[in-house]
Amino acid sequence: MLSEKMLELGRRRSVIREIFSYGQARKAEIGAENVFDFSLGNPSVPAPADVRDTLAALIADTDPAVLHGYTAATGDASVRRAIAEYIQKEHGCAAHPDDLYLTVGAAAALTIAFHAILSGGEEVIAFAPFFPEYKVFVEKAGGKLRVVPCREPAFIPTPDDLRAALNENTAAVIINSPNNPTGAVLREADIRALTDVLREAEARYGHPIYLVADEPYRELVYGDIAVPFLPNYYDNTLVGYSFSKSLSLPGERIGYLLVSPTAGERDALRAAIAGAGRALGFVCAPALFQYMIPACLGKTSDVSIYAANRNRLYEELTAYGFTCVPPDGAFYLFVKAPDGDANAFAEQAKRQELLLVPSDDFGVPGYVRIAYCVTPAMIERALPAFRRLAEEYRLGE
Amino acid sequence: MLSEKMLELGRRRSVIREIFSYGQARKAEIGAENVFDFSLGNPSVPAPADVRDTLAALIADTDPAVLHGYTAATGDASVRRAIAEYIQKEHGCAAHPDDLYLTVGAAAALTIAFHAILSGGEEVIAFAPFFPEYKVFVEKAGGKLRVVPCREPAFIPTPDDLRAALNENTAAVIINSPNNPTGAVLREADIRALTDVLREAEARYGHPIYLVADEPYRELVYGDIAVPFLPNYYDNTLVGYSFSKSLSLPGERIGYLLVSPTAGERDALRAAIAGAGRALGFVCAPALFQYMIPACLGKTSDVSIYAANRNRLYEELTAYGFTCVPPDGAFYLFVKAPDGDANAFAEQAKRQELLLVPSDDFGVPGYVRIAYCVTPAMIERALPAFRRLAEEYRLGE
Repeated sequence: MLSEKMLELGRRRSVIREIFSYGQARKAEIGAENVFDFSLGNPSVPAPADVRDTLAALIADTDPAVLHGYTAATGDASVRRAIAEYIQKEHGCAAHPDDLYLTVGAAAALTIAFHAILSGGEEVIAFAPFFPEYKVFVEKAGGKLRVVPCREPAFIPTPDDLRAALNENTAAVIINSPNNPTGAVLREADIRALTDVLREAEARYGHPIYLVADEPYRELVYGDIAVPFLPNYYDNTLVGYSFSKSLSLPGERIGYLLVSPTAGERDALRAAIAGAGRALGFVCAPALFQYMIPACLGKTSDVSIYAANRNRLYEELTAYGFTCVPPDGAFYLFVKAPDGDANAFAEQAKRQELLLVPSDDFGVPGYVRIAYCVTPAMIERALPAFRRLAEEYRLGE
Repeated sequence: MLSEKMLELGRRRSVIREIFSYGQARKAEIGAENVFDFSLGNPSVPAPADVRDTLAALIADTDPAVLHGYTAATGDASVRRAIAEYIQKEHGCAAHPDDLYLTVGAAAALTIAFHAILSGGEEVIAFAPFFPEYKVFVEKAGGKLRVVPCREPAFIPTPDDLRAALNENTAAVIINSPNNPTGAVLREADIRALTDVLREAEARYGHPIYLVADEPYRELVYGDIAVPFLPNYYDNTLVGYSFSKSLSLPGERIGYLLVSPTAGERDALRAAIAGAGRALGFVCAPALFQYMIPACLGKTSDVSIYAANRNRLYEELTAYGFTCVPPDGAFYLFVKAPDGDANAFAEQAKRQELLLVPSDDFGVPGYVRIAYCVTPAMIERALPAFRRLAEEYRLGE
């Protein structure tokens, strides 16, 4: 009498977590410095000093009964006010504090969003490759994930492919830019074209189609690239944000879900989100980390390390003969499996102690994801292994 | 195209939260010291110094990339080991670290448990009065809450009432002792009698019936009362625990779900729990507060304040003519509405600026819950208001 679906999910585990666990065990066997674990998006760059200083000051100076007490389910009002003001200033979007619902990270923001907008049986569109948990989250909320493949090599969703996938049963479309696993960033022209298609479809089918923006990598972009703020382009937008990657706090689970202030059912959306958060047992986002937010808005850990990692890996790997597009954001390199078989390639890499994630679970065959949020020293140690791997595949000959 | 159920949950809000919000607004109007808010189980006794010291030391001394990084989805292995050892020593139960799944509080432990054990359509038994969110959590997981009323005045569930409610569709029974809202604590004899009935029913229906122990108040008992550890009495037990009340950390959302090491489907249960946690978007419990646990196991905030509050309120209120049973645990007094109408009584109390929660949402009419996890000073200020309320009802005449 257990839930077969939950049992299967627990037994299968995510491929990423599976490889990460293998890496932990392998490190215990042969030494941590001899395993090149590129599996998990767990930042190695430490949180900025503001995080430590703010946490230390809060703990030293605040009445613990207040600091650690329940906040409103939507999050502390002064924290939501600070975030709303930041969004107004940074993105020119008239977000109200009550449009914000603080969450235990972006994953919770997504599950709460899907449980709020899905009644059962609707479709949610994701562009492949996509973060594999989208499928898990959408199905648990009663929806069906419809996968729209992006075109190689840049993996930018096209308006025509989106148009062909939309139907009267479409409730939402997920956009994840900067993208995990490709690092692709949608430009303003992309967003305008995609949201035009969505508006057409809303008019055609006579109901809202929500744009769910999954944005944990918003601040992680390389060079002079702007990441458009989707509520400024499309009314029925929900933004799931996390401080996990920007502030290197993935274990603390702190983020938010924003209802666009121009959403058609703004009040009902806010209420359905509060209802979903309540029904799933979230109660409130961790209080100490809520109170940390106002002092750390707009700050990031040292992104220049990721930029250096990206450049070094991209240049070396392509020099060895591997094929990939230089990522514009996030901290992933999406590399073609030389013979098209991602699983075989990941297994072959494993023999060189390189832990890479095959792309199949991301909805695209024939690639591996390399998470380069690691130390520069590990990259240097790993390069000879990548070179040997290239030689095994007779690349660059 | 929103979920009507989530919308309704978000709009209706919990009665407790509703009254709490009214209190916040009222305090702004007439001054915090003039509102006697007994609505929320938000501890006023600060967290023990160990909490502050441990958090400060972790933040000062630990590599932030480790401290704030992802842990395993089940929780950090060394933290789970420390909790398992504590349970072995304190309760004589052979819990294994892998029987533990760290959660963002007891609410999450419960939702994860229900999503793990329910496939859809099964019944979960709760004894009334019960924490109102049980109904929300069970229904969201696809189950149906079957309410078994307890008998006045002590509100201890009886084996006969349990036996009459069990049927082939029963998947689980919730036990919450010390109880919210009555403060009742089940003694060993109660537990033996109830679990005998459960074992009979398991044999009769040929499938497990899980005992879900909701234990946020385990350490909050008055006098020399032992709270039996349910896995020692019944194999198919899941324990949802929270550090919210014992350590005065309700806003930090840190707790765990324990699978009894003698559970029949131990491995499958662990997997289904991991699957449910994953599907609901929990990822991992907040890392910093996970690492705080080993140093704070078995410690509590100053419970003597609650004991003093309990005695003072109980003695005064009964002297004024109110009727209630002295609570053995938790920090709630469950007081009879003098004319049997809980909502009218709560409204009448509100005119004295006393914020009490009517019992109807707890599944029992005719009572109010008084959360006495407040300051002793507030109780002194509130006593004249309680006395006037008693006079309005012509009690003690």
